[in-house]
Amino acid sequence: MSERERESTGFLIKQRAFLKVYLITEIERGPAYGLQLLEILQKKFDPHGFEPNHAEIYRSLHELTEAGILNVRDELAEGAKRKKLQVYTVKDRDLAKAYKELAKVDLDRCQDLLRKAIQDNYS
Amino acid sequence: MSERERESTGFLIKQRAFLKVYLITEIERGPAYGLQLLEILQKKFDPHGFEPNHAEIYRSLHELTEAGILNVRDELAEGAKRKKLQVYTVKDRDLAKAYKELAKVDLDRCQDLLRKAIQDNYS
Repeated sequence: MSERERESTGFLIKQRAFLKVYLITEIERGPAYGLQLLEILQKKFDPHGFEPNHAEIYRSLHELTEAGILNVRDELAEGAKRKKLQVYTVKDRDLAKAYKELAKVDLDRCQDLLRKAIQDNYS
Repeated sequence: MSERERESTGFLIKQRAFLKVYLITEIERGPAYGLQLLEILQKKFDPHGFEPNHAEIYRSLHELTEAGILNVRDELAEGAKRKKLQVYTVKDRDLAKAYKELAKVDLDRCQDLLRKAIQDNYS
């Protein structure tokens, strides 16, 4: 978790942490580039009324790389002479797992908080 | 929902909307003043690692009053000569109910999104 995430008011999980969990899971399945990940996540969340934007995804990937969880390398896009893609892979599987486990505690806490809110106000 | 709440990125429910639901429910039970409500909510959320602050509660009460959902009146605190309490009551029960119903849709959506995240990333 970055400094900003830890300084949270303790309400619900931050969007950035939520996206990082998904990005790690996707990249654990195999190398992927940014635009591809953006499209996968937008498609996943579309039925749930959530549309993560380009900037949030790229900042999350950048932070995961800075944290030593992901690796990034430049690859030439097929068929394009000068177009480079930034391809992400998992650099440290243990760190990736630790990040996800920490986020899981917060996801469980959020589920409890929402369940409680529904129970307290609608029954 | 205020303008700002509607302009949400569609991620999880905003803290302000979440608090308003609880404030309405508490005030539906009977008149209450700000500090009392702050203490009730802090106690409720304490086991869930969430501590709403003074400013968020007062802004929520103010917005609910502006929206015509709550009424506020000044009362002298017992035993204190000059201390005034701002006492809140429900002004419009239908509006209060409508606010809560709208928020319920978002709470349900958030529960689904968290459930999906846990399923997608931890199974």
